[in-house]
Amino acid sequence: MTSKPLGNNKVMQVGLIVENIEAAVQDWARLLGVKPPSIAITAPFDTANTHYQDKPSPAQAKLAFFDLGQVTLELIEPIGEPSTWNDQLAAHGSSLHHIAFEIKGMDEHLRGLAEHGLPLIQRGEYEGGRYAYVDGQKKFGTVIELLEND
Amino acid sequence: MTSKPLGNNKVMQVGLIVENIEAAVQDWARLLGVKPPSIAITAPFDTANTHYQDKPSPAQAKLAFFDLGQVTLELIEPIGEPSTWNDQLAAHGSSLHHIAFEIKGMDEHLRGLAEHGLPLIQRGEYEGGRYAYVDGQKKFGTVIELLEND
Repeated sequence: MTSKPLGNNKVMQVGLIVENIEAAVQDWARLLGVKPPSIAITAPFDTANTHYQDKPSPAQAKLAFFDLGQVTLELIEPIGEPSTWNDQLAAHGSSLHHIAFEIKGMDEHLRGLAEHGLPLIQRGEYEGGRYAYVDGQKKFGTVIELLEND
Repeated sequence: MTSKPLGNNKVMQVGLIVENIEAAVQDWARLLGVKPPSIAITAPFDTANTHYQDKPSPAQAKLAFFDLGQVTLELIEPIGEPSTWNDQLAAHGSSLHHIAFEIKGMDEHLRGLAEHGLPLIQRGEYEGGRYAYVDGQKKFGTVIELLEND
């Protein structure tokens, strides 16, 4: 087994699934005393190449980000399915979904994490990088996200 | 309403409820490539003065902490009830429970947060400080913890 499967231990993001991102952005902005951030929509399949459980998925999400220091709080409202975002909303309602680490070398890390009981659930691409979610809900209590920026 | 009800926006802790902290500590230590941290038990009522929904509670928890940079990952296994820890385990199983912010002036912050739809669920004391959890699960998707160290 890889002895440092994440490569680094600096969590860089906490992901929160919400039912209504427009309302959640206003609520969080008021709570944090900041300007509401803009809301983006993840790219459609032909750009994001979203795969869920190893199969192409048309699912997307609306996203908004708040700066909490080292860590970004990511609000996520699922659009369509199948996705780990939609699974979480269906099973638990609005709730914390993942903690994210930045890595270099996605496929190598995914192999190492699978050996630690963290199989891939979903992956996709964004401008300048790619992400993968591994399923730690049973063994680790949370989905873990890997982010690789070029 | 207070314009900065948290006072600062640096998240300092992410809390994760687990069913079996001894197993979870080993799994997380292997994943992070670090030595397993020690497991502590929160103080009993006569020291911790734990209150849940404004009433004294005998609930305790086993705790362990991992350093993730600015943020600490806190593993929590509930012992007894009633507590927000036990509520989370019963409703969602092992899962992310809270994000925590360090504040100064607990009662003033609790008043400000109540105005933002974040009522107090549970509070207690530890050596050198005190904590409070406010109920953001419906409006904010997560419990929020306030930590005040003397």
